[in-house]
Amino acid sequence: MKLRRSERIVAITKILIDKPYRLFSLNHFTQKFDAAKSTISEDLSIIKRVLAAEDMGQIETISGAAGGVRFIPKKTAGDIEEVVTDLCQDLSDSDRILPGGFLYITDLIFSPETVMEIGKIFATQFAELDADYVITIETKGIPIALATARAMNLPVISIRKDNRVTEGSVVSINYVTGSSKKIETMSLSRRALSEESKVVIVDDFMKAGGTAKGMLDLLSEFKAEVLDIGVLMETAQPEKKLVSNYTSLIVVDKVDEEKQQVVVRPSNSILGKSD
Amino acid sequence: MKLRRSERIVAITKILIDKPYRLFSLNHFTQKFDAAKSTISEDLSIIKRVLAAEDMGQIETISGAAGGVRFIPKKTAGDIEEVVTDLCQDLSDSDRILPGGFLYITDLIFSPETVMEIGKIFATQFAELDADYVITIETKGIPIALATARAMNLPVISIRKDNRVTEGSVVSINYVTGSSKKIETMSLSRRALSEESKVVIVDDFMKAGGTAKGMLDLLSEFKAEVLDIGVLMETAQPEKKLVSNYTSLIVVDKVDEEKQQVVVRPSNSILGKSD
Repeated sequence: MKLRRSERIVAITKILIDKPYRLFSLNHFTQKFDAAKSTISEDLSIIKRVLAAEDMGQIETISGAAGGVRFIPKKTAGDIEEVVTDLCQDLSDSDRILPGGFLYITDLIFSPETVMEIGKIFATQFAELDADYVITIETKGIPIALATARAMNLPVISIRKDNRVTEGSVVSINYVTGSSKKIETMSLSRRALSEESKVVIVDDFMKAGGTAKGMLDLLSEFKAEVLDIGVLMETAQPEKKLVSNYTSLIVVDKVDEEKQQVVVRPSNSILGKSD
Repeated sequence: MKLRRSERIVAITKILIDKPYRLFSLNHFTQKFDAAKSTISEDLSIIKRVLAAEDMGQIETISGAAGGVRFIPKKTAGDIEEVVTDLCQDLSDSDRILPGGFLYITDLIFSPETVMEIGKIFATQFAELDADYVITIETKGIPIALATARAMNLPVISIRKDNRVTEGSVVSINYVTGSSKKIETMSLSRRALSEESKVVIVDDFMKAGGTAKGMLDLLSEFKAEVLDIGVLMETAQPEKKLVSNYTSLIVVDKVDEEKQQVVVRPSNSILGKSD
């Protein structure tokens, strides 16, 4: 079917947005819509202009024979602040306090709309790093990693917390959790990650950073280069973590079981302020 | 900024597609774009017509005061067959055979593009069921559940395979895995699922169906109504599973470690053929 401009624009917008970071050649669209290159170029410049003006992400054009056009989800600083502030408000609910002073966050992490927003924030943070993989550790890191990876068009690799893994030979390390000083095991299938890959790490929570430190140690067995670490939440204490370069979205200052009080705030690093 | 039709259409398409199943009132758009109701209605009917003609999903209009418009991702039978056939081809690679006759599928499940397609297939399958939650069990079920839930705008609930769960009081059951006859534990936090919810289950793999049976037992403790079960892959043997109503996308006929041979095929149920 031969489409008019406004019709073609619907279909092209859908195609680009459905597959973030996927490069489509101009030929893909000229053939699909039986339209001239100049026509498609004009369609694309309208889409690009509107998405930019409405802060809905970026259309990037790459010229040359291997070139094409792709959609890059980007959140503005204002958007990020809004999402993180909303999350903080939700997390401040004292009903979230669990026995032992833990905070119930599973519902947020497993809400697709919420976690997709979190993923887009990390994707914005990692946009210029040219990573090959998004790495996480089961279980609650997985939805965040998948959302981040979807916004970056990268595969996820999930480190296992045991070694009962039916994935061929695995590399395992023992690590000491920074907060409870327990010895745990984490494993990664040899075939999951090729050597000397460039990776970013995401996880849900950082207390002392023992798990993150363990992930760095395990990844060094694969000679991976870790470009950045993103965590949804970190605790204010201990201030000095076992890893140094990471970005958190939210800082947990206090979970007081007795007073039924939760104090959380947007992290300075994500708001672009220096700590 | 006052937009022209082709420009408005880009923004409206983006808003609808980004949040499947989310109902947007017409007022949302008339205010955002400072346009008359009739103008927005016409924009929407163009978007609806194009998405339908290009098999890109459905725009549903719900009339009345609480009404509005929403995007429903739907895959056609032809699309589903294509995705499943491609998956089968990928899975037939003898490099996927792991010691013990297991099949390596982690890379597919953790590839956002692939798992989002799988999620849209299950969302199409479950579209009319009016479920409240998508339920899965860690670890490899999680990406599939999240992709399905994203296409349906539903929360995911992930059952844990241990009971070292920091989520308040949990309900745990012991279950016998149908194939290896081992006793395992699965747990779900009491607060995760309200009683008498309507749910659909998704998982990556079904052999004898012991895990699925365990999930049904655990969910019955929450008085949940299980509307359907979807699994990415099932083994042809044993033919009789411990659960009866489920849909699989792919059937594994044989993984022969000695001959280095994998035989998989699209499931009859997903192709609309009776077994």
